[in-house]
Amino acid sequence: MFKVAIVGAGSAVFSLRIISDFTKITEFKDVEIYLMDIDETRLNSTFILANKLNEEMGSKLKFKTTTNLEEAIDGAMFVINTAMAGGHDYLEKVRKIGEKWGYYRGIDTQEFNMVSDYYTISNFNQLDLFLKVARLVEEKGEKGAWLLQAANPVFEGTTLILRNVSINMVGFCHGHYGIHYLAETIGLEMNKVDWQVAGVNHGIWLNRFLYNGKNAYEILDEWIKNNVYEPRHPFDDQLSKVAIDMYKFYGQMPIGDTVRNSSWKYHYNLETKKKWYGKFGGADSEIGWKWYQDNLKAITETINKLAYFVSQNSNIKLLDYNLYKDYLNIEIFKEEIERIIDTEKLSGEQHVPFIDSIVNNKRQRFVVNILNNGVIEGIDNDVAVEIPAWVDSSGIHSEEITPKLSERVIKYYLRPRIMRMELASEAFLSGDIKLLKEILFRDPRTKSEEQVEGVLNEIMNLPENEKMRKHYIL
Amino acid sequence: MFKVAIVGAGSAVFSLRIISDFTKITEFKDVEIYLMDIDETRLNSTFILANKLNEEMGSKLKFKTTTNLEEAIDGAMFVINTAMAGGHDYLEKVRKIGEKWGYYRGIDTQEFNMVSDYYTISNFNQLDLFLKVARLVEEKGEKGAWLLQAANPVFEGTTLILRNVSINMVGFCHGHYGIHYLAETIGLEMNKVDWQVAGVNHGIWLNRFLYNGKNAYEILDEWIKNNVYEPRHPFDDQLSKVAIDMYKFYGQMPIGDTVRNSSWKYHYNLETKKKWYGKFGGADSEIGWKWYQDNLKAITETINKLAYFVSQNSNIKLLDYNLYKDYLNIEIFKEEIERIIDTEKLSGEQHVPFIDSIVNNKRQRFVVNILNNGVIEGIDNDVAVEIPAWVDSSGIHSEEITPKLSERVIKYYLRPRIMRMELASEAFLSGDIKLLKEILFRDPRTKSEEQVEGVLNEIMNLPENEKMRKHYIL
Ligand SMILES: NC(=O)c1ccc[n+]([C@@H]2O[C@H](COP(=O)([O-])OP(=O)(O)OC[C@H]3O[C@@H](n4cnc5c(N)ncnc54)[C@H](O)[C@@H]3O)[C@@H](O)[C@H]2O)c1
Ligand SMILES: NC(=O)c1ccc[n+]([C@@H]2O[C@H](COP(=O)([O-])OP(=O)(O)OC[C@H]3O[C@@H](n4cnc5c(N)ncnc54)[C@H](O)[C@@H]3O)[C@@H](O)[C@H]2O)c1
Repeated sequence: MFKVAIVGAGSAVFSLRIISDFTKITEFKDVEIYLMDIDETRLNSTFILANKLNEEMGSKLKFKTTTNLEEAIDGAMFVINTAMAGGHDYLEKVRKIGEKWGYYRGIDTQEFNMVSDYYTISNFNQLDLFLKVARLVEEKGEKGAWLLQAANPVFEGTTLILRNVSINMVGFCHGHYGIHYLAETIGLEMNKVDWQVAGVNHGIWLNRFLYNGKNAYEILDEWIKNNVYEPRHPFDDQLSKVAIDMYKFYGQMPIGDTVRNSSWKYHYNLETKKKWYGKFGGADSEIGWKWYQDNLKAITETINKLAYFVSQNSNIKLLDYNLYKDYLNIEIFKEEIERIIDTEKLSGEQHVPFIDSIVNNKRQRFVVNILNNGVIEGIDNDVAVEIPAWVDSSGIHSEEITPKLSERVIKYYLRPRIMRMELASEAFLSGDIKLLKEILFRDPRTKSEEQVEGVLNEIMNLPENEKMRKHYIL
Repeated sequence: MFKVAIVGAGSAVFSLRIISDFTKITEFKDVEIYLMDIDETRLNSTFILANKLNEEMGSKLKFKTTTNLEEAIDGAMFVINTAMAGGHDYLEKVRKIGEKWGYYRGIDTQEFNMVSDYYTISNFNQLDLFLKVARLVEEKGEKGAWLLQAANPVFEGTTLILRNVSINMVGFCHGHYGIHYLAETIGLEMNKVDWQVAGVNHGIWLNRFLYNGKNAYEILDEWIKNNVYEPRHPFDDQLSKVAIDMYKFYGQMPIGDTVRNSSWKYHYNLETKKKWYGKFGGADSEIGWKWYQDNLKAITETINKLAYFVSQNSNIKLLDYNLYKDYLNIEIFKEEIERIIDTEKLSGEQHVPFIDSIVNNKRQRFVVNILNNGVIEGIDNDVAVEIPAWVDSSGIHSEEITPKLSERVIKYYLRPRIMRMELASEAFLSGDIKLLKEILFRDPRTKSEEQVEGVLNEIMNLPENEKMRKHYIL
């Protein structure tokens, strides 16, 4: 059939979701999937579990593993990039350097970009990898090959690639599922909701919200009057005080990670974060992000262990928890595994359904990141926006955004967010360090030039940033 | 002939410049000029000196004074607004409150808006006066009457009025004369320079700079290599380190007050200002601004004294310094008076030549503030831009901006500056205090919500801000 490459396939949960979706769509049961990663241990775990899943689901997917990017992409029709150069360790290292120089939560934490693994300033290697993957898709991919971008920063990445490389490309995020949570919480049945979101990645706003054809914002307003939010976990913020405060200011509801991507007003320090996001201080506080990282670590460990167990006990089934429940703490991704194995339900990731629409001409609706080209008025054409679109074998067809985004969203939120994307992208392309500095000069935490020079120097002097240092300084 | 109204005519130097221009343009020697101000002492001084000037220049201008705005505007064909509600005392009072709450140089001092009498947040009364004048021009002015805006903030004012009142209107500033200074300093003859500037008021950039048809930026670059700047006074910054640093970053030279309107990097504190602007710390440091205010005060006093002297000695001439040099310190505006009396030279203010172009169909070039309407790409149509234009009796005809402004000027300078104009204008129109707060939440000096609430409350509780308080809070 055709070849798919997953770059960063060691991200096991993500890979298994993608693979499970392939097993569930009948037309795809014999696709060839290249799992690529630089971490062989993680890659191997994914490979073992992928094969198990394939077998358990009765599919005939063919898996190959490789640590060679070129080999993975060579002849691929779809390349899914979920790799994160440097991983979470790098993020933490750089965040620590930032904090040492007076930048709470690190220099990449910026107004309207507070998401803790969404680095745009110090992530030279990540953007470099994005472009490398894209250029390989152009050179080595199947004719008309698609790049599906899952790794962050999706906004900067999608804009950068679509401006500079002539390939088919789309960025995906699951942030817009916040609408489902929102609707359910305020008592709506999702199938009666008519919605649209628009904006940029991690900056999307509910421009259309109808219930049975009537304005559902009225129902939301009523709910807000009568309810107080208490977060059950750090990421539970769709109806937080912040979300509602932003809604009141911007006139439309922020959806998904947009709630995290608010202004400094909500993020000065842990105390302020707690005041606005509840007891954890939100996903991007030191508390919330540690919780997330601990979770990720536990999952990675569990997956490695499970993969080992499966490799030693080749006739077990993934769903047979009892067989291995004493060996490892399965609780942490029981739900995940159940969903993966559930033949009725897709994972929720948009990638494989998107491929399905393209390959099998099934017209379906997605929320995609593509260049604006006039869809959102008041924003440059060559900026990647996140919008609903219909996809079939003829490609991506944006919906008309109606009603429009509020003037406040455009002028006071999207435009300043876009400005920082432009600064980061131009810096990355030109190697002009003045641009990185300029981002920091406009950062409220900056008090002096010495601070800016100091923090950038220390970050660029990290051994893994040799290429970055050469790009900007030599 | 026709009627002109000068609102804020107590600003004597400005009024005398305008009046002297009327005396020098032959067609205008019998125009009727209404001098309007709320300060009768200042108004009276202007009136006495205006009559003296009229007599000395052999003109037949007719002056009336009034403290009634409606009377001044009724039937006027041209209204020049140079009034500043609250005056410099108000600015200083509000600046002091700002500093008390941690806002060095006051809350109205903002990124790309550091000019010390260009208030946009706490200047409700000034914007209110702008609109009042504009609406009176619409209602009471001669058919097709023009409003010429001289008072600051010209950018916010021009945008606000042209968006909301259907009149002929233009904003003027003399910032672009910085080009003359620049050209002379680097050794060019101005009549061989082909130049254009574009941007927004106090944010204009030298997009075209040719000398004898050749790229004059090369001459500038050479000059920069071989010269070091030492300011002779606080406003002497056109070739300062800041100007050159901005030029290096933005790729085009900032002109006039644009050099003052730089980012926080140059303005953290007096020390930083001195480092960048030289020993006075620039026009907007505590040193520079005091120098300016002391000058203004001395001029006002001297003018009042001179007016009194003239009223007592009706047969003296203004040019006869010797007659009154013992009575007052004339040094301070000797140059000014000489220029005013010099029949060969106009004052340099654009207002009267503009009226000349309109009334007498003399096609001349100006730098005007009008709505963009596509002249500068990448900026909304309904934003007031400052651009070169040709004027005759058919109106204002913008020049095409070529070469274009640099991408960096558009994306990293003008757009964020425009965003603040939008926030301030929407705040003023809607009375939604959340917008004023939002400006401060995005201010690097803000550390908490309490600070924002505190400073705004204290400013709004000033007795002169009762209308503002009611607008925003009740
Ligand atoms: N778009 C979305 O909806 C969404 C949701 C969650 C996370 N993310 C993003 O996905 C990315 C991965 O997140 P994660 O938490 O799984 O990170 P992770 O570090 O756990 O996994 C990323 C994988 O990339 C691999 N990798 C690193 N450098 C590589 C290279 N040069 N070539 C190939 N593989 C390489 C790592 O070995 C690792 O296995 C991040 O950018 C994250 O922000 C996106
Ligand atoms: N566009 C330019 O080129 C330019 C240059 C310099 C100054 N300015 C601006 O011009 C304005 C005046 O500056 P200034 O230093 O002469 O100030 P000023 O306070 O000395 O003079 C302003 C005059 O306005 C009068 N006034 C106040 N409220 C009034 C009202 N409601 N109606 C009528 N008159 C009123 C005052 O009595 C005073 O005589 C300021 O906004 C300043 O920023 C513009």
